[in-house]
Amino acid sequence: MLEELKKRVYEANMLLPKYGLVTFTWGNVSEIDEERKIFAIKPSGVEYEKLTPDDMVLVDLDGKVVEGNLRPSSDTPTHVELYKAFTSVHGIVHTHSPYATSWAQSGRSIPCYGTTHADYIYGEVPCIRCLMDKEIAKDYEKNTGLLIVSEFERLCLEPEAVPAVLCKNHGPFTWGKDAHDAVHNAVVLEQVARMAYMAEQINPRIQPAPQALLDKHYTRKHGANAYYGQK
Amino acid sequence: MLEELKKRVYEANMLLPKYGLVTFTWGNVSEIDEERKIFAIKPSGVEYEKLTPDDMVLVDLDGKVVEGNLRPSSDTPTHVELYKAFTSVHGIVHTHSPYATSWAQSGRSIPCYGTTHADYIYGEVPCIRCLMDKEIAKDYEKNTGLLIVSEFERLCLEPEAVPAVLCKNHGPFTWGKDAHDAVHNAVVLEQVARMAYMAEQINPRIQPAPQALLDKHYTRKHGANAYYGQK
Amino acid sequence: MLEELKKRVYEANMLLPKYGLVTFTWGNVSEIDEERKIFAIKPSGVEYEKLTPDDMVLVDLDGKVVEGNLRPSSDTPTHVELYKAFTSVHGIVHTHSPYATSWAQSGRSIPCYGTTHADYIYGEVPCIRCLMDKEIAKDYEKNTGLLIVSEFERLCLEPEAVPAVLCKNHGPFTWGKDAHDAVHNAVVLEQVARMAYMAEQINPRIQPAPQALLDKHYTRKHGANAYYGQK
Amino acid sequence: MLEELKKRVYEANMLLPKYGLVTFTWGNVSEIDEERKIFAIKPSGVEYEKLTPDDMVLVDLDGKVVEGNLRPSSDTPTHVELYKAFTSVHGIVHTHSPYATSWAQSGRSIPCYGTTHADYIYGEVPCIRCLMDKEIAKDYEKNTGLLIVSEFERLCLEPEAVPAVLCKNHGPFTWGKDAHDAVHNAVVLEQVARMAYMAEQINPRIQPAPQALLDKHYTRKHGANAYYGQK
Repeated sequence: MLEELKKRVYEANMLLPKYGLVTFTWGNVSEIDEERKIFAIKPSGVEYEKLTPDDMVLVDLDGKVVEGNLRPSSDTPTHVELYKAFTSVHGIVHTHSPYATSWAQSGRSIPCYGTTHADYIYGEVPCIRCLMDKEIAKDYEKNTGLLIVSEFERLCLEPEAVPAVLCKNHGPFTWGKDAHDAVHNAVVLEQVARMAYMAEQINPRIQPAPQALLDKHYTRKHGANAYYGQK
Repeated sequence: MLEELKKRVYEANMLLPKYGLVTFTWGNVSEIDEERKIFAIKPSGVEYEKLTPDDMVLVDLDGKVVEGNLRPSSDTPTHVELYKAFTSVHGIVHTHSPYATSWAQSGRSIPCYGTTHADYIYGEVPCIRCLMDKEIAKDYEKNTGLLIVSEFERLCLEPEAVPAVLCKNHGPFTWGKDAHDAVHNAVVLEQVARMAYMAEQINPRIQPAPQALLDKHYTRKHGANAYYGQK
Repeated sequence: MLEELKKRVYEANMLLPKYGLVTFTWGNVSEIDEERKIFAIKPSGVEYEKLTPDDMVLVDLDGKVVEGNLRPSSDTPTHVELYKAFTSVHGIVHTHSPYATSWAQSGRSIPCYGTTHADYIYGEVPCIRCLMDKEIAKDYEKNTGLLIVSEFERLCLEPEAVPAVLCKNHGPFTWGKDAHDAVHNAVVLEQVARMAYMAEQINPRIQPAPQALLDKHYTRKHGANAYYGQK
Repeated sequence: MLEELKKRVYEANMLLPKYGLVTFTWGNVSEIDEERKIFAIKPSGVEYEKLTPDDMVLVDLDGKVVEGNLRPSSDTPTHVELYKAFTSVHGIVHTHSPYATSWAQSGRSIPCYGTTHADYIYGEVPCIRCLMDKEIAKDYEKNTGLLIVSEFERLCLEPEAVPAVLCKNHGPFTWGKDAHDAVHNAVVLEQVARMAYMAEQINPRIQPAPQALLDKHYTRKHGANAYYGQK
C-alpha cells in the first residue's frame, strides 16, 4: 500500500544522516499522500543504518496506524496537526540539528541577516514559546503541533513562505512540498542558524538585512517572476 | 576467559574514534561481567588502529590484573571505584571529547537547556571539584573515582538518571548498562555539551528548560511508562 | 566552442563542494577566454552532482548567452561587470561559504591579523555596503558588480592585490588569474575569515598585524622578488 | 643519501593533511640525522598530493642544500636555528592549523586549563612577540628561529617540556624527538588550542589548572616514574 510514498519517505529519512542533521535516531521525516488522507513516517527509535522502506509506518489524520508492524515516531501527533492545518504542506521534518537546536534552546527567533536566509525563508524563523505544564502533562506531542499552528496564525505567517519553526527548549520542525523538499529546508535552516550565530559573534550590533533585499532574493527564487534556476 | 566480554569491550572502544570522541589514545572503555567480579578494559596508551579483542585486559575489583599481557588503562582505579559503588552500572567510558572537556576545564556543570539533554540525562551534568594536592599526590586515579562517588551521594544523584560527570580541569566519564550504552551516553554528552555552549553564546541570559518538560522527556524514554522506541 | 575553457570552468566548479565551500547550488565559477570576449559560467540552480562540462554556458560581455541550453547563473551580470572593469582578472567565484558569509552578514571588513591572510591578500578584505532600494529594484546583479568596481576605485584597491570582497548581507566574491586560482582564493578567504573570527573571540582587544610583516609575507609570494615555492 | 630519513620526513609531512592541520601547502616538517649535521625538509610550495619521498630536500646547518632538485621550504632558516640551539630536538613542524594560528594571531599564550594539555606540555604554550621591522626586513626566517630560541632562554623553558611555540601574527611551531613525534605534538597543540578557546567562552573567569595536577599528569607520561602506556 502506497509503496512509492514509503520509498520516498525512506529516502528522505536517509538524507538526514547524509547531511549531518541527526545523531542516532534524533529525527524523523514524513510525507502525506495526494488525497491528504494517509502519511508515511519513520518508526520510533529505529537506527538509520537498519531502516528499510518497509519499516515506514502509514498513519491517518486521526493519528491511527493504517499499516506497519512498528510504532510510528513519537512525534507523530505533531505531524498530524501540521498536516491538518497547513494544507499546502506535503512533507515534514523534525531534527535536533546542532545549530537550529541551539537557537531553540536559547529561546530566540533567527533574524534574517542575509540572502542565504532570504532565498528560502521570508523573514525571521520564529521561536515559539515552551508548552505550559498542563499542555505537557497530556497530549504533549499533539499540543506541540497545535501551538505551532496557532502561533503561525497569530503571527500571520504563511507556512509556504516560512517553512521552519523553532520550538523553545526543544528543536526545529521544517516542511515543504514533499518529504525531500522538507529535508532541503532542514539543511537550509541549519546553515542559516550557523551563519546567524557566527555573524552575531563577529558583530554584536548587527542589524537584520534591509527589507528590499529580502523581497528581491525571495522573489528571485519563488513566485511568478522567479528567475533563479532552470525553467 | 570471558571472550565475549573482551569482544564487546573491544568493539565499544572502537566506537570512540568512529564517533570522533578521541584523538590518539585519549579514551578508554570497560565493561564488568554479570557477577560483578571482573571487568575488561582497554590497555594503556595503545593506538586504536592496532587494538585487537585479545589486547583487552581483565581486572578484578581490587584493581589486580587477572589476565592480559598489557598494562590496563592508567584510569583503571577510577573504573574500580565506580563499579564498586554504582552497582547498576555495567559499562564505563572516559574520553577527552572536545566540548565536554571544555566544560570540565571551565569548571561549570552543564545546565539542561532542552529535550536533547532531558531525553538521556535527568538534570544538569555535574562538574565536580578538582582533587586537592594530597588527593593528587597518592592514589590519584582511585581518588578520582572516590570523589565522583561521594559527590553523587552528596548531591543525591542516581547514576542511572545522571549517567555522566565532568571532572574539573580533566574531562568526562560516562556510564551505562553495558559498554556500548556507556559509549552511547558519551556521544550524547558531547552533543549536549556542544549545544549548551552554543545556546549560551546565542543568548547569554538563557534559562534552563522548565522542570515539566524535563520530566516529560525523560519519562518518555525511561521507566515503566516509556513510549519512545519499539516495545 | 571553447571546449577547453568549459572543461576548466566545470572542474573549478566541482572544487567548490570538494573544499566544503557550497551547500546545494550556492555558488558559481566562471573564466573568461584570452581575448576577453566570452566567458564560461555554471548554469543556474543545477546540482553539482549532475553537472557536466557541456552544461557550462558561454556568455559575452553584454551578458548575452552565446552557447548553451541552460540559463546561466543568476549572478552572471555581476561577473560581466567585474570582467569589464578588472582587466587582469580571468576567473571569478561566488559562494555562500559559512565564515566569509558570516562576516558579510555582520557588515564588517576582515582585518589582516596574520601571515596566512597576508600571504594572499594585501590588507583587509573590504565589506562593501548593501545596495540601496533602487539599486535592488532594477538590475540588482549588475548593480552588485558596479558597486564592487566603484568601491575598489574609491578605496584605491588593486584587484590583483585584494582578490576578494564581501557584499554586505550577501556573501563573498573572489577572483584570480583563472577559474582555478579564483577558487584557490575562495578557500583562502574562508580560512582567513574563520581564523579572524576565532582570534577576535580569543582576544577582543586584538590589533591588526604590523605593516612590515604584511609587506614581507605578500612580497615573499608575489612580485619580482618572490622566493616562496619553486621557480 | 639518507633515504630512510627522507622517507620518514615524507611520511610525517603526509600526516599533516591526514590530521587536518594544513590547507594547500601551508605547513612543513623536517627531521635531522643522528649526527645532527643534515636534515631533510619538505620542498617549498609543493602540493601534498604530488609529494614523493625523493622530493625531500637535504640541508646542512649552514642552511645550504646538500641534495635535492627543489627549493627547500621557505621556513628552512627557522628550522636551522632551532636545530642549532635545541640539541635534544630531532623533528620540527610548522603549520597554520586553525586554532593554534588563531591564538597566535590574538597574541596570547595558551594557558594550561587541564590534563589534556598537561599530559604533553608543561605549562602554558608561549606566544612570542612579533619581529621588529628591522628583523623582518633582513633574514626574516632566520630571525624567527633566533627569537624563539632567545625567548625560551629568557623564559627558562626546556624545549623537551614545552614542545610548542606560537609566533605572534603568524602561527605555531612544534618539535619532538623525531619528525613523527613533532607532528604528534602539532596535533596535540591544535586540540589544546581548541579546547582552551571553548573553555574561555564557556567561563570567561576560568583559571588555569592547579600546579599539582599539571605535575601529576606530566610525570604520569614523562620521566623516570612514568606509568602511562606500555613499558
